[in-house]
Amino acid sequence: MGNNDYAYPSAAAMNVECVQRVAIPPPQPFFKSLKCSMKETFFPDDPLRQFKNQPASKRLVLGLQYFFPIFEWAPRYTIKFMKSDLIAGITIASLAIPQGISYAKLANLPPILGLYSSFIPPLIYAMMGSSRDLAVGTVAVGSLLMASMLGREVNPTENPKLFLHLAFTATFFAGVLQASLGLFRLGFIVDFLSHAAIVGFMGGAATVVCLQQLKSILGLEHFTHEADVVSVMRSVFTQTHQWRWESAVLGCCFIFFLLITRYFSKRQPRFFWVSAMAPLTSVILGSLLVYFTHAEKHGVQVIGELKKGLNPPSITDLVFVSPYMTTAIKTGLITGIIALAEGIAVGRSFAMFKNYHIDGNKEMIAIGTMNIVGSFTSCYLATGPFSRSAVNFNAGCKTAASNIVMAIAVMLTLLFLTPLFHYTPLVVLAAIIVSAMLGVIDYEAVIHLWKIDKFDFLVCISAYMGVVFGSVEIGLVIAVAISVLRVLLFVARPRTFVLGNIPNSGVYRNLEQYPNANHIPGILILEIDAPIYFANASYLRERITRWIDEEEDRIKATGKTSLQYVIMDMTAVGNIDTSGISMLEEVKKNVDRRGLQLVLVNPGSEVMKKLNKSKFLDEIGQKWVYLTVEEAVGACNFMLHSYKPNHAHTKDESEGWNNV
Amino acid sequence: MGNNDYAYPSAAAMNVECVQRVAIPPPQPFFKSLKCSMKETFFPDDPLRQFKNQPASKRLVLGLQYFFPIFEWAPRYTIKFMKSDLIAGITIASLAIPQGISYAKLANLPPILGLYSSFIPPLIYAMMGSSRDLAVGTVAVGSLLMASMLGREVNPTENPKLFLHLAFTATFFAGVLQASLGLFRLGFIVDFLSHAAIVGFMGGAATVVCLQQLKSILGLEHFTHEADVVSVMRSVFTQTHQWRWESAVLGCCFIFFLLITRYFSKRQPRFFWVSAMAPLTSVILGSLLVYFTHAEKHGVQVIGELKKGLNPPSITDLVFVSPYMTTAIKTGLITGIIALAEGIAVGRSFAMFKNYHIDGNKEMIAIGTMNIVGSFTSCYLATGPFSRSAVNFNAGCKTAASNIVMAIAVMLTLLFLTPLFHYTPLVVLAAIIVSAMLGVIDYEAVIHLWKIDKFDFLVCISAYMGVVFGSVEIGLVIAVAISVLRVLLFVARPRTFVLGNIPNSGVYRNLEQYPNANHIPGILILEIDAPIYFANASYLRERITRWIDEEEDRIKATGKTSLQYVIMDMTAVGNIDTSGISMLEEVKKNVDRRGLQLVLVNPGSEVMKKLNKSKFLDEIGQKWVYLTVEEAVGACNFMLHSYKPNHAHTKDESEGWNNV
Repeated sequence: MGNNDYAYPSAAAMNVECVQRVAIPPPQPFFKSLKCSMKETFFPDDPLRQFKNQPASKRLVLGLQYFFPIFEWAPRYTIKFMKSDLIAGITIASLAIPQGISYAKLANLPPILGLYSSFIPPLIYAMMGSSRDLAVGTVAVGSLLMASMLGREVNPTENPKLFLHLAFTATFFAGVLQASLGLFRLGFIVDFLSHAAIVGFMGGAATVVCLQQLKSILGLEHFTHEADVVSVMRSVFTQTHQWRWESAVLGCCFIFFLLITRYFSKRQPRFFWVSAMAPLTSVILGSLLVYFTHAEKHGVQVIGELKKGLNPPSITDLVFVSPYMTTAIKTGLITGIIALAEGIAVGRSFAMFKNYHIDGNKEMIAIGTMNIVGSFTSCYLATGPFSRSAVNFNAGCKTAASNIVMAIAVMLTLLFLTPLFHYTPLVVLAAIIVSAMLGVIDYEAVIHLWKIDKFDFLVCISAYMGVVFGSVEIGLVIAVAISVLRVLLFVARPRTFVLGNIPNSGVYRNLEQYPNANHIPGILILEIDAPIYFANASYLRERITRWIDEEEDRIKATGKTSLQYVIMDMTAVGNIDTSGISMLEEVKKNVDRRGLQLVLVNPGSEVMKKLNKSKFLDEIGQKWVYLTVEEAVGACNFMLHSYKPNHAHTKDESEGWNNV
Repeated sequence: MGNNDYAYPSAAAMNVECVQRVAIPPPQPFFKSLKCSMKETFFPDDPLRQFKNQPASKRLVLGLQYFFPIFEWAPRYTIKFMKSDLIAGITIASLAIPQGISYAKLANLPPILGLYSSFIPPLIYAMMGSSRDLAVGTVAVGSLLMASMLGREVNPTENPKLFLHLAFTATFFAGVLQASLGLFRLGFIVDFLSHAAIVGFMGGAATVVCLQQLKSILGLEHFTHEADVVSVMRSVFTQTHQWRWESAVLGCCFIFFLLITRYFSKRQPRFFWVSAMAPLTSVILGSLLVYFTHAEKHGVQVIGELKKGLNPPSITDLVFVSPYMTTAIKTGLITGIIALAEGIAVGRSFAMFKNYHIDGNKEMIAIGTMNIVGSFTSCYLATGPFSRSAVNFNAGCKTAASNIVMAIAVMLTLLFLTPLFHYTPLVVLAAIIVSAMLGVIDYEAVIHLWKIDKFDFLVCISAYMGVVFGSVEIGLVIAVAISVLRVLLFVARPRTFVLGNIPNSGVYRNLEQYPNANHIPGILILEIDAPIYFANASYLRERITRWIDEEEDRIKATGKTSLQYVIMDMTAVGNIDTSGISMLEEVKKNVDRRGLQLVLVNPGSEVMKKLNKSKFLDEIGQKWVYLTVEEAVGACNFMLHSYKPNHAHTKDESEGWNNV
């Protein structure tokens, strides 16, 4: 539609001013535009939309339902739902009990804390959470992180009480951070952990966690407190004489069993419960084995006594005045962010499957409240782990009620069944952790990243290496730093293209992507692919000059029509700041001195507003701003063929300077 | 050209596959694309371009000229140039001598260092610098920064020798940093100091410097070592009884004289030499006054003895093993960056006037070398101050030879004239500094920032406040942090628009900017104005969902054709990462479930490549990717009016989920 011949009449028509011009948006009062941009920044999902035009009573109900989604789904709850949730809840409880104990051991905390943390937090989440599939509980990475960060200050074997209290305090601060991120609508901070960073980070953490299990599997008494691969390997191979083969054999058998069941369930999704029940089965088998063979006397370490009874209150245990306060806060902040990232990502992915919406900020408030309350009731950091939520989903859960079922099952265990875990060998717990962690190392995702985006791959691998060879925090910092660097680099080094005309159309596209597009003689069309900011203003000035130089060289070599017009397509320039405007002014001067004419195409509303305010529009002349490249080229061609541009004298004038 | 009616045939034509498709760029080997992007990042100006296709001898000459531009301009030097440079050189020397002494006092260094620093560095710069207008010398902000940062560790009155040595060491590190930024092509780091940040920062520093002069002007003996406004004001007003009126009167007279001459020269640019000579005149007048009235005995402090002779070597004075090393390094890095930013910006702006090119990285090497050599020869931090360069420019300098003339004039002063400065009152130096600094506070630029870009204004004011109420470093950090935050926020919260058809054309533009553009019934056209990255992927998912919701609400309210197509114009999406692709997949699923069809328009080469590799193109179907919005709308309209889309059944299927 429309070729160059077609474009001429419109260019001619333009001279009689009947074509649509690039609009300058009407000026807006400062506070209105401030309010508008604040809203876009902090309330992009417009959470108050449903409250509009409602009576006060309805608003109250909606508000209650907003903060406690249980009031929304409970009235519609049916027997059919209940049946599904019951099955799902019992299934995840059977997974939660052994995993909870294992992860508490990983965090160097009393094993019973794992059960406590699977009782209160799920109840809170069931009331406040908006995900229907999230199964709440402790996570391996959070546990490891807590053990390593707190362990650097306080030795958990020498001073278990202080360590425990610091863990509660850290959980409290994690909850406060999570809830306030949600309340202050700062959820987007979590977005700065890119998917690639999380894959690498999780993989690294899983590797580190697996390596830590060598302690239990090999039955070692002494072990390094460091988490990096070098320290762990040194610790393992300097005490080869201490390895216990009984423990190792048992461990390998259980890992094999767990992996086999997982593989089976993956192939046959109907039998999801096989892999879900496997950990509990392992625990029972392991405990029976130890009980009957008295293996605890032959070097197989067991859990020992677990206290009966529900969560004791721990609100008085929180430490707010202590030399270790800052450690607790730091641990809380880092574990809180990591836990949040996992919880939100898991909730969101299952919501996608079932096509319902999750409000990230609301979820943060729910997860945060659950950790604050948890820290008052002897729980440590909980979130929505992927493995457990996947089992919940596969088991057919319908609402968050499955969490309530799980909590009740855990409660019954706490009240009556804890003595049964006395003989559970630690090596079984290690096997459960290893098999869970092997599922977290997502090498397929890494291959996918390599194929599609090398930079994402770099982020992922750096995060992995940082975690494995440094520490979890180092990995985290590296991943975030590289991700942010990428964003800055994108803005600092935006792509610029030369556009050409696509044959038989009025469309102008990047010559690199469309090799069949044609140069327009005498006209250089440039496209800038990013906002023009201080960070890229000098780069763009250099680059545009270089494009013009190269075009002039090319023309010299081919001996075609000399360059007369430089058209800048501003379609993709989303915004401009004062440095950017100065840059345009400099480019304009530079282009003028070469005796060329600068033409702008389609500046956006924000850019147009600023160009107008800064008088650049008057400088360049409104008539040199066109709505489309086609119109601009038409106008330039029209003038090229009818008369020489009237600014040719500028060239001679500038010659003098060049000779200096 | 082309309206909707016109668009139909093309849509029909498209079905017979004769229209240009969106091209997938040919795959490039990994290392080639890596090399290419490295080149764009570090060598955007292609500095080796002139070396291509040249014989070895020519390359040697070009290389020499590249690092020592003096070899380029010296052979072409004429008598006419020499005359101009001589006048300019003498003019700037008359400014440099009093300013040098003043700034050295400001830095708490021996006044003679100001003269030393105006002798060696200009000679080095004359050989290596590529600016023809930069006049080299010390700067007020750099001097103040050095005094305050080093002064925090070492008291300059109690331990002047150590302080001096640390100043040389800091200068050395500043030079090393500057030269290595240039050598490693990292000049773009300086770009992260935006123009707005520099205006605020310089204004704040000038305010602080002016306040510091109250010490000399009021003739106070004791004064705070802090630089912030609160400490200074407290220091001034707690010793009102110590104020010396003789000193104050003298100071005010000289400030008035200097401001008057500057005002006059500004109005009459022909008489630029009036303001250029004013400081030297003030010094002579002040010295004569003190000499004849013996005012030094009545509370007017004087410079005292200045050692005759050229720069003594100071290479052995550099401190590399000392508890103060880190302070010296930190001071060097910060002052180095600030000095660099000023030097480069000044060089660039004068180069713009005269239309020649300045290579930022080359300039950095020149300024860095000049400071390294300076630190070996008893000089402290030098760069290209704006005031002196402006005088140089107005005096009609033609090449860097004016710096050589200035250096010779300073050399003669050092050899023969230093005793003349014995009676120069400090209050005159203070007056010179105040009048220079009042010119640096660029309130007009601040008003300009407020008018054009509120965010830049915020950056500027924060930098100012940080410097005035905190310290120079705090101001710097605040300014850079806010600037970077802005870039991140731009990427995290990109703008999205709904497009409409501009009447009587095939052009689709943002409805906000073009209120007369028309909605197309049944089609929602969205434009995304930024690369799709991890940082904005979840925001965009929310925002796109909200656009669709709002459009459906609008349609419900008006009762028009129901929504069938969502067109996403990807023109402005410069890049996409794996998080972005997942986001698109989720949007696609979401749109599918609502029974709508997603259509992409004009993805760029990078985006197209990644969409292809990640199989998203196959998922959406190549036929739903169009080159222009016009074509896409044409095709959608064609199908809307000929038959119902064949994916309507998806809607019913998804209903089940929604009821859960």
